[in-house]
Amino acid sequence: MDATLDAVVIGAGFSGLNAARILRGEGKNIVVLEARDRVGGRTKHGQIARLDIDLGGMWLAPSQVRLAELADRMNVGRYPTYLAGKSVLTMAGKTGLVNGEDFTEFLTIQEKIQAYLLLRKINHLLSALDEVDPWGSPQSKKLDSTSVEIWLCEATQSERLRSLIRVICASLFCAETSQISLLFFLNYLKGGGGLESMISADTGGGQNLLFHGGVHQIARNMAQELGSALRLNEPVHSIDVSNGIAVVNTQSAQFWAKRVIVAVPPTLTNKINFNPPLPSAQTALHTRLSMGSVIKFWIAYPTPFWRQQGFNGSIVRDDRPASPCFDVSPPNSELGLIAGFFEADHAIHAGDSNTLHRRETVIAMLAAHFGEQALKPLDYIDVDWSREEWSKGCYGAFAPPGVMSHYGSSIRTPHRSIHWAGTETATQWAGYIEGALQAGERAAQEVLRGLS
Amino acid sequence: MDATLDAVVIGAGFSGLNAARILRGEGKNIVVLEARDRVGGRTKHGQIARLDIDLGGMWLAPSQVRLAELADRMNVGRYPTYLAGKSVLTMAGKTGLVNGEDFTEFLTIQEKIQAYLLLRKINHLLSALDEVDPWGSPQSKKLDSTSVEIWLCEATQSERLRSLIRVICASLFCAETSQISLLFFLNYLKGGGGLESMISADTGGGQNLLFHGGVHQIARNMAQELGSALRLNEPVHSIDVSNGIAVVNTQSAQFWAKRVIVAVPPTLTNKINFNPPLPSAQTALHTRLSMGSVIKFWIAYPTPFWRQQGFNGSIVRDDRPASPCFDVSPPNSELGLIAGFFEADHAIHAGDSNTLHRRETVIAMLAAHFGEQALKPLDYIDVDWSREEWSKGCYGAFAPPGVMSHYGSSIRTPHRSIHWAGTETATQWAGYIEGALQAGERAAQEVLRGLS
Repeated sequence: MDATLDAVVIGAGFSGLNAARILRGEGKNIVVLEARDRVGGRTKHGQIARLDIDLGGMWLAPSQVRLAELADRMNVGRYPTYLAGKSVLTMAGKTGLVNGEDFTEFLTIQEKIQAYLLLRKINHLLSALDEVDPWGSPQSKKLDSTSVEIWLCEATQSERLRSLIRVICASLFCAETSQISLLFFLNYLKGGGGLESMISADTGGGQNLLFHGGVHQIARNMAQELGSALRLNEPVHSIDVSNGIAVVNTQSAQFWAKRVIVAVPPTLTNKINFNPPLPSAQTALHTRLSMGSVIKFWIAYPTPFWRQQGFNGSIVRDDRPASPCFDVSPPNSELGLIAGFFEADHAIHAGDSNTLHRRETVIAMLAAHFGEQALKPLDYIDVDWSREEWSKGCYGAFAPPGVMSHYGSSIRTPHRSIHWAGTETATQWAGYIEGALQAGERAAQEVLRGLS
Repeated sequence: MDATLDAVVIGAGFSGLNAARILRGEGKNIVVLEARDRVGGRTKHGQIARLDIDLGGMWLAPSQVRLAELADRMNVGRYPTYLAGKSVLTMAGKTGLVNGEDFTEFLTIQEKIQAYLLLRKINHLLSALDEVDPWGSPQSKKLDSTSVEIWLCEATQSERLRSLIRVICASLFCAETSQISLLFFLNYLKGGGGLESMISADTGGGQNLLFHGGVHQIARNMAQELGSALRLNEPVHSIDVSNGIAVVNTQSAQFWAKRVIVAVPPTLTNKINFNPPLPSAQTALHTRLSMGSVIKFWIAYPTPFWRQQGFNGSIVRDDRPASPCFDVSPPNSELGLIAGFFEADHAIHAGDSNTLHRRETVIAMLAAHFGEQALKPLDYIDVDWSREEWSKGCYGAFAPPGVMSHYGSSIRTPHRSIHWAGTETATQWAGYIEGALQAGERAAQEVLRGLS
């Protein structure tokens, strides 16, 4: 056991894989330990009607340069989310159709004015925030004492706009507005380029592009490049950095390394025993963050028949559990595919039923809007991410009030030779694959500096 | 392995021990599994200057009838917390001395009026709350969206009163006001008989009486009565209730039982694999609750010399980390003992230093008020409860905003043959030993009904 590694990377999601790729590129001797029997973390390969699909993260925003570059290098092509036609929208008791994503069509003139004012309030708050050090701003304690819900009820009198923000929060965080710190919400928006860009599937938006064959294959390609440096089914039990060298223990093996990168969701670090213990503020942060709750579903039809009816397949309803959903049919297939989500409390409630029951819920919603053809899908599949042992939720961790301003500043602070990756530690697009890549890159750079 | 037990009780804190005691009293065949090498949970035996003391929970309120009755039966006597003389109080930049606990002496006439109005607001909110079903009230969602901090800043303009409530929250929950749901706060106060009774050490208050020899000995006595039915060092890995019988697995053994009582802090249930999985709302509740942060210290002097100076030993300062502290010297000893706390963020920061450093902090504070004699203690001891593997914090779990109203109703709901105990599941004095006993009693009764 005198073969001391340069680094051990824990977690083979996009963050750990990217850290490993960069370290190997610099000729470092590393090992990647992954608890699951697969790579990709909160992205995951699946099949529906024999087509390869993403059961986890899947979209690309044009501003997400790291992910785009990786995909280009691997020749993984993209296609835009289908938006031509009408979306179905229900908000606070009113149902209607709008063109593409233009939800403002749905608002009265008065509500449009209020929406403009609300967005200006948000952007004003965002402009005062430092995205790298949001806890350092003079306003941070106050913003962090408040839940998004409390702020929302003060910020607008429009029940329809409140409903819209609640749906957006559920979609971004898979949590309810009452559970999310306003400071965390704002910081998240800031890192993703603002509210409008994050919720949009149109040009420039967070849900703009999809990968032919799925984004998960990029993780698999990165894993292949690692060869035998990647070890699956190796959950880490303990990390001892009390002496100069780091000792990483799994059930079956022990690894000695100069540096360690922990690239797992912060809420899962509690499964690892650290010696010496992590700084108290870091433990407090990790234990107080919560994972969002989401069940992602896919449903397949012989054709995207809704398009002929003038629909684009998008349904956003604040009164139905299986929303939002989108037409994600790949252009090189005849199949009609819709992917959607049970989010936040809807996911928690639907988590106690079963796939068959959820399938019925989805079909009933689609049939209500797209007619009888929706009753006969070819295939249906879903994944409850809260039940995945090594995720315990998706898309990311969120902070309840009073956590970020008190302990947030330690989220990226190395503990002796331990460095932190994972999308939650990103300063841009935290909670997204792009954030995972950025965090992995930053952790790798820390390690390279530490080794030199 | 055909010897099927009536019940397995997991956790030998006061809650599990009481459940076991009641089940055995009814002739049931049970086993108690405890992860630690000792019983008592969040109570713990210690010694200072050769005197037996409590390193965890220790006080008795006169209205806590279950604990009093147990103590009576075991002939464990009580003595009142010493209050004769002046307490030191600092709040929002003003330091002063008050008689006993009468902090109102410290307030201006205007502040007294505001304090009266604030207390009336709290009591008004309490009167509208159902202590068994707080999440069912029409107001619950709104109360639960708010942190105590946000409510506080609206409820009073007095910075001194705000500071007082912040100190009270730190003392009750070992957490900051910005982190605690107002609904949770109110429900907690309701179960403890209201704010005034909970914060008082005088007749009727939560800190009124101390046990000769320590409350931990009551847990030890209960454990002795269990004999070989108690198994220490047996952390439970998994519970399988998928077939009619419950199968409880530890590292070394397997137990079959008709019923299971889980009597551990809800945040620790995540260490146990349940098959079938717990209901999603129950998992969401357990993962979203947080444990408070506290370091309890004891310091011993040859005599309670501060008494001669007219002090009662109580120091409550919002600007010092080692506060509050109290004179807890037993009347049958000549020693002068002070017990106190690093709470909430003070505990988190002090958790990264060491016992020697914390000892200096405590001594400096005592010397500043009680003079040079404080510089030479006989002994000092402290425990960081966040670092205790099988507690991960004290005194109890608290709920951030948006948790109780969404998932709280499942806190006592049995999952097949699994029943829930632990002080957090109590309807009265949750977070106290009395709550632990009440919860254990209720769970035992559920099991008895289930077995009959």
